Amino acid sequence: MDRIPILKMGPFLLVTIQVDLYDRLALNLENDLIAMVSKTGARGVLIDISAVNIVDSFMGRILGNIASMSRIMDAETVVVGMQPAVAITLVELGLTLQGVHTALNVEKGMDLLYDRTDLLTTQEDEDNGEAPDDYNE
Amino acid sequence: MDRIPILKMGPFLLVTIQVDLYDRLALNLENDLIAMVSKTGARGVLIDISAVNIVDSFMGRILGNIASMSRIMDAETVVVGMQPAVAITLVELGLTLQGVHTALNVEKGMDLLYDRTDLLTTQEDEDNGEAPDDYNE
Repeated sequence: MDRIPILKMGPFLLVTIQVDLYDRLALNLENDLIAMVSKTGARGVLIDISAVNIVDSFMGRILGNIASMSRIMDAETVVVGMQPAVAITLVELGLTLQGVHTALNVEKGMDLLYDRTDLLTTQEDEDNGEAPDDYNE
Repeated sequence: MDRIPILKMGPFLLVTIQVDLYDRLALNLENDLIAMVSKTGARGVLIDISAVNIVDSFMGRILGNIASMSRIMDAETVVVGMQPAVAITLVELGLTLQGVHTALNVEKGMDLLYDRTDLLTTQEDEDNGEAPDDYNE
């Protein structure tokens, strides 16, 4: 596999990282993401790393790069689903993920993006797992 | 990697398949998905296969299994993001993906799930890539 799929979800883009990022894959991801932000006018990028067991300085730099590039394109970046062990390692390594927001899971990350981009949240009624049913009242 | 992450998005679950499914990985995915459906009460399962270049009979059977299991748990399954070449191969192989719904991308798949599960869609205003901003009027 030489590309990580990028999913468009409403005004945001979602990327799930499931494999170790090597040089070319990371570079492709950066390029593809920026191209998608430009093409779709996305206001936010969600990066799910729940399947990632190790975040080293390379991965940290890639996440930082994506956040910086996205910000220039007027899109916020939120990293979601970080495993507790990864958070511990990050702090012990002294990596701060500069410019990257974090959230516990995709739903909370999406709420955070709606907040930060001043878009109206559509998640309020979905927190209990049910669909919103009062929007048309 | 021995697990594919499952993301909860409102009333639905989202799975992005980026790697070749071998026996144990497929089995884990089935188990994890059914456990998640049971735990979260999800009404639908979205499986994105945009990164999958080859769907063989094994993969077709796994998708069919997931759909059958989910249906018993009162959740619909939609496969999204199929590459044109994969669709061609499926037909040439005579694989019909019995019981599996398909949609072009995640957004359309989510719309389909909202339709099929009689939940109110929240995607109506997002088709043009903009956030809904008239729900509270």
